[in-house]
Amino acid sequence: MRAEILTIGDELLRGEIVDSNKAFLSDRLLSLDIETRFHASVRDDPVDMEDALRRAAARSDITLVSGGLGPTRDDLTIEALARTFGRRLQVDRASLEEIKAFFARFGREMAPNNAKQASFPEGAEVLPNPIGTAPGCLLEESGTLLFCMPGVPRELQRMMDEQVLPRISKRLAGAEGRPVVRAALLRTFGIGESNLDEELADIAREDGVSLGFRTAFPDNYLRPVVRGDTASEAETKLARICDAIRERLGPLVYGSDAETMEEVVGGLLRERGKTLAVAESCTGGLLGERITAVPGASDYFLGGAVTYSDRAKVALLGVPEQILREHGAVSEPVVLAMAEGARERFGADLAVSTTGIAGPGGGSDEKPVGLVWVGFSDGGETAAQEFEFPLDRSRHRMATAQVALDWVRRALLGEERVALRYLRRSR
Amino acid sequence: MRAEILTIGDELLRGEIVDSNKAFLSDRLLSLDIETRFHASVRDDPVDMEDALRRAAARSDITLVSGGLGPTRDDLTIEALARTFGRRLQVDRASLEEIKAFFARFGREMAPNNAKQASFPEGAEVLPNPIGTAPGCLLEESGTLLFCMPGVPRELQRMMDEQVLPRISKRLAGAEGRPVVRAALLRTFGIGESNLDEELADIAREDGVSLGFRTAFPDNYLRPVVRGDTASEAETKLARICDAIRERLGPLVYGSDAETMEEVVGGLLRERGKTLAVAESCTGGLLGERITAVPGASDYFLGGAVTYSDRAKVALLGVPEQILREHGAVSEPVVLAMAEGARERFGADLAVSTTGIAGPGGGSDEKPVGLVWVGFSDGGETAAQEFEFPLDRSRHRMATAQVALDWVRRALLGEERVALRYLRRSR
Repeated sequence: MRAEILTIGDELLRGEIVDSNKAFLSDRLLSLDIETRFHASVRDDPVDMEDALRRAAARSDITLVSGGLGPTRDDLTIEALARTFGRRLQVDRASLEEIKAFFARFGREMAPNNAKQASFPEGAEVLPNPIGTAPGCLLEESGTLLFCMPGVPRELQRMMDEQVLPRISKRLAGAEGRPVVRAALLRTFGIGESNLDEELADIAREDGVSLGFRTAFPDNYLRPVVRGDTASEAETKLARICDAIRERLGPLVYGSDAETMEEVVGGLLRERGKTLAVAESCTGGLLGERITAVPGASDYFLGGAVTYSDRAKVALLGVPEQILREHGAVSEPVVLAMAEGARERFGADLAVSTTGIAGPGGGSDEKPVGLVWVGFSDGGETAAQEFEFPLDRSRHRMATAQVALDWVRRALLGEERVALRYLRRSR
Repeated sequence: MRAEILTIGDELLRGEIVDSNKAFLSDRLLSLDIETRFHASVRDDPVDMEDALRRAAARSDITLVSGGLGPTRDDLTIEALARTFGRRLQVDRASLEEIKAFFARFGREMAPNNAKQASFPEGAEVLPNPIGTAPGCLLEESGTLLFCMPGVPRELQRMMDEQVLPRISKRLAGAEGRPVVRAALLRTFGIGESNLDEELADIAREDGVSLGFRTAFPDNYLRPVVRGDTASEAETKLARICDAIRERLGPLVYGSDAETMEEVVGGLLRERGKTLAVAESCTGGLLGERITAVPGASDYFLGGAVTYSDRAKVALLGVPEQILREHGAVSEPVVLAMAEGARERFGADLAVSTTGIAGPGGGSDEKPVGLVWVGFSDGGETAAQEFEFPLDRSRHRMATAQVALDWVRRALLGEERVALRYLRRSR
C-alpha cells in the first residue's frame, strides 16, 4: 500500500509557513500501518497541480491532498482535480445549503465566491467539514483513492480522523498478512534526550521494538514503536514496554499521548479536591493561560495575579514594600511572599509563583538574564527554588511555567520537588 | 529560474518530525527573488531517492537537497547522488582530516563509519560544515545545480547562508532579463477572507500583481506579490499596492510582516507614554501572556488580574458583590467594573477586561457558549461591547484577546472602537 501526501499553496513554497499537515497525516496513516512514501508540495498553479496529481495517481494507492479548497481565486484544487482526470464540475446542493447555514450561524450572508466551495468533480464523494466552509472530497481514479482536505490544520485534522481514516480502514479490512505496528507516546520533563537514550538503552534493544526520541521544548517525548504478528501481540508488547519505561523513569514521565502538563495537574487537583491560584511576574500570564486552556478549569483554578510592576506586587499580593526594596523583585523573599499572597488573596489551597529575568534586557552581574525563582505554598510550607535557564525570552518563560506546574503535580503526588538540570547552586 | 527542495529521511515520512527546513530554504531562495516550485520528500530508500533526484535535475535549475548525510547505514544521499548521475565516489582528503579534527576537539576518536562522510561524487565541490561532521556538496549536472546539505536545522541554515546562497548569487549575477519579484505581508483583523477578496478585487487584477490570502486565526493576512523589470520598479510598485490596500482597508490593517498585535499595541503605548493593565476572566491569562511576550513590556504594562472565580473578582478588582449576584459574572456591569477596577488597582492609564463563556460547558439559553463581554476604561469613559464567537474554547479565547488588544490599539489611534462581524445585536 503506497501512500502519498500532496499539499498545495503558494505560502508553503514561499516558506511563509512551516507545513505541519504532512507530519500529522503521515502519523495518522502510520496508525493504520500505512507508510507514506512521498511528500510533495506545489504552488497554486494549475499546471504544477495537474502534474502532481497525475504522478500521484500513477505511483500511489492512497493520495491525501490538502489546501486550495478556499473561496478565493487562488484556491484551485478542485478545478485541477476535475481537469486532471477529465471530470466535469457539479454543484453539490447539500454542501451549498451547509455553507449558507454556516454563515447564517454567524449572522452573515454567504459571499458569492463561497458558492464555489460546493462544486466537486463528477463522481466524487463529498466529505463534510463541520467546522469550516470548505468540504473535502474523495475521488477514486483507476484504483487510487484521492482524498482532498482543507489546509487549515484543525479542519484537516478533524476531517482526517472522522472521514478519511474510517474510509481507508474499510478498504484495508480485506488485506491480510501485514505486520501490525503499534506506537505510544510518553511525555517526560526534567531529563535530557541523551540521558533518556542512555537510561533506556536496554529496552530499546529488544527485538521488534524501536524507541524514538523527540524534543518538544521544554519536554522530551519518547515514542516506543513495536511490531507484532497480530494486533493483540503488538498491543501486549507495547503495554509491557511502556510499563518498563515508566518504572525506570518514575515521575519524570508526566503523561502520555496528547495529555498536557496542565491537564495532568488539573486532573490531580480535581481528584484531590484542591484549589489553585498563581502569582506571575516573568511568566506574565502564561501559567494562568495554560491552566485555563483546560475545559472545566474553574472547578479548581481560582485565579492569578500578573504583577509585572512592584506596585502591583504590593497592591494585589501584599508583598511588603520593604523586601522589594531590600532584595529586589527577583529574589527568594519576594517569590515566597507572592506565593503566600496568592494563596491568601484567592483563598486557595495551593499557590505557585514566578519571578525572574526573561531577557533580553534587565540582567546584572548578580542577577543575570535567565535567573528565575519559583515559589510554592500549600499552607503548611512555603518554599522557593532558584533556577538558571540560559534560554531566549520565550523559552525561558515556557521552562519556568513548566517547572511551576510540575511542582504542583509532584506536590500532589507526594514526590520530591523537582528533577531538574537547571537548578542553580545556592550562592 | 526553477527551484526545488528535496528533503530526505524516514522520520519525515513517518510524521515523527515537522519539516521546517523546507520553509527556511524557500524563504532564503525568495530573498534572491527565486521562487520555489516544488517541495518533495522521500524515505531513506535508494530507489525513491534516485527517482526524485532524476526528476529534480530534469525539471529544476536549482535543487536543494537536505538530509541523509550522516554516518549511519540509513544515510544514503551521497551514494544515491553518485549512482543517479553515473559518477564514482571519491574520498576527499581535506574533509577526512576535518572530520578527524572535529572528533579530536571533543576528545573522541573518529568512529570508522564517519569516514564515509568524506566521500563525494566525482566532480562535486565540497561545502564545509564548521559545526557538524557532515560536509555538504555541490554537483552540477546538465545545467542543474544540486546542493546537498545536512538535515540538522542549525547546520543546514549555516551552510545555506554561508556556502549555498553566495554560490547561487554568483550565478545569478550573469543572468539578465529575469523579472524581479518583491512581496509584502499585511496583517488584518476584523474582516473575513472572502470580504477581503471582494474589497480588493480591482487591486489584485493589476498587471504584474498577485494578491494572496492566508488565514492565521483570528487574523487574515494579505500577501501582495509584484513583478518588475528592475528591483526599483518592483519596489515602487509594491509600495504603491500596499498603500492602496491600507487606504482601502483603514484600521483593519494593523501591522505588516512579523509584527504582532501585541507589538503594535506595545509600540503605541510606549510612543504615547501610556500604561496598561488587564482584567481577565475567560481569557485566563492569555492577554497578559501576549503583552509580556514583547521584550521591554514592563515599560508600559503594569499587570493583570486573572479573576476566574467570583471571589477573585471582588477581592482583586473590587467588583461589587451585588452586581455579580444580580447580573452574573458574564455581564455588562461586571465587565465594566473589572475594567475600572484594573485601572484603579494597578494605577494604569488604560485597562481592558474580558468575561465570557468559552465552553464547551457553562452555557444557558440566555447566555450561550460563545458569548463574551469586553470592557475598556481610560479614565474618561468606560465602555463595554458584547460579542458572540461560536468557536471552540481555544479560538474563543484567541478571538476575545485579539478584540481586547485591538480595542486598545484603536483607542490609541483615535479610531472607531471595533470593526467586527461578531458584535452581538443588543437584546
